[in-house]
Amino acid sequence: MSLRFYAGKQILQQGESILLDEGESHHLLKVMRLHAGADIRVFTQGFEHQATVVGREGHQARVAVGEQCHGTAASLAVGVTAAIPWIRGGKTEVVVQKLTELGITTIVIYHAVREVVKADSSKLERLQRTAIEACKQCERADVPELLLADTAAHAVRLAEIPTSQCFLLHERSNANLLSTAIKHEMDSGRTFRTIAFMSGPEGGFHPSEVETLRNIATSVSLGPRILRAETAPVVAAAIVLSAFGEM
Amino acid sequence: MSLRFYAGKQILQQGESILLDEGESHHLLKVMRLHAGADIRVFTQGFEHQATVVGREGHQARVAVGEQCHGTAASLAVGVTAAIPWIRGGKTEVVVQKLTELGITTIVIYHAVREVVKADSSKLERLQRTAIEACKQCERADVPELLLADTAAHAVRLAEIPTSQCFLLHERSNANLLSTAIKHEMDSGRTFRTIAFMSGPEGGFHPSEVETLRNIATSVSLGPRILRAETAPVVAAAIVLSAFGEM
Repeated sequence: MSLRFYAGKQILQQGESILLDEGESHHLLKVMRLHAGADIRVFTQGFEHQATVVGREGHQARVAVGEQCHGTAASLAVGVTAAIPWIRGGKTEVVVQKLTELGITTIVIYHAVREVVKADSSKLERLQRTAIEACKQCERADVPELLLADTAAHAVRLAEIPTSQCFLLHERSNANLLSTAIKHEMDSGRTFRTIAFMSGPEGGFHPSEVETLRNIATSVSLGPRILRAETAPVVAAAIVLSAFGEM
Repeated sequence: MSLRFYAGKQILQQGESILLDEGESHHLLKVMRLHAGADIRVFTQGFEHQATVVGREGHQARVAVGEQCHGTAASLAVGVTAAIPWIRGGKTEVVVQKLTELGITTIVIYHAVREVVKADSSKLERLQRTAIEACKQCERADVPELLLADTAAHAVRLAEIPTSQCFLLHERSNANLLSTAIKHEMDSGRTFRTIAFMSGPEGGFHPSEVETLRNIATSVSLGPRILRAETAPVVAAAIVLSAFGEM
């Protein structure tokens, strides 16, 4: 399979030529050392095309867009939003990478009360780069949307999901298991447009967060073992996606 | 909740006193700086007891074993064996940590044909330490068994699982999804003693491995996206455990 490059948020037309951004151009020209005539693929938000390298213009690579092809990994039938806290030690980046690989549609990163890491806008840029790299690696053509939220409650409001389809991963709770809660909701006959889940920080949700979220999300459990902050969202994503027949 | 320490593979009796090994003693005496009289918990293979620090003897901590208590995370009702390849960049360790958190019973690490990392016995010791640390963190009392296998086929033979309950995570295959295959097997009425899955290395299984494994394992897919070598086993574990009502 040809190497794949991200063409940004634009509509691709067969026959036109486009410039890749500097990050992608660096990967194409310097890392992979491709020259004019090389066959590649380019993808935008869910669409993928055959393409050919035309040459370089300054630091950028120009490519000719060819026929549209099916990305090997189509978008999910139901949108899945994951709300995760900032986690220290580069773990936010690892979680964004994994959630992208799994196919998650939207990732909201929020500031938890028990947060132990400070975020800045350069981190968001790096995370966007991480998501693009993961799309290239896993053959996904739709880059997940990354959003920032001030608080856990703000993250839920951003997601705009009905309470019964927005699951709060609440450790040490006696709530239903996530898999049981999803099955229950699927059996209710209510339709899903988007499903969401929210994981907590190291040390868990603060009682004030649980109190606020009680009325806008459904508490669920991932079982008796205490999962790390970076493990829980990946596990929840796998459970949600398998419930929807995606894996 | 009291700090938890691993007491090795011994049977604990209320009223006796035991020495912790050097690793655990270091954690108790040097890292946590506990003194005589401190309340802790000790756990062995699935059992957990209240305990009190008695004092130090050389580099080791002596503790008095008290009443047995329920570990918060009981062992799985069905044993789950995960067979994983050695993965470079310390990723084998990350996978062992995550699989332990999730509750996997046995982890078999095998040499893949497309292996890019060399294993030695010191790595096994470090992985055992990783599993113990993960048990302490996730409140699990039964440390998973770690086994080494020469080849993928050897790993399957070690696991001693019926072909229909031993799942090969075969990327880019047209096989059933893992979740579908498990459901199918559960609906068959056959009983499960242990279920197993095997993930492949970076670059995927070699055709010769797929050929050999064809008759001793059932090929399944994790969907259209290509998961990294360190992501697939964690995702598979989550799917298997949720199918068995564990998460």
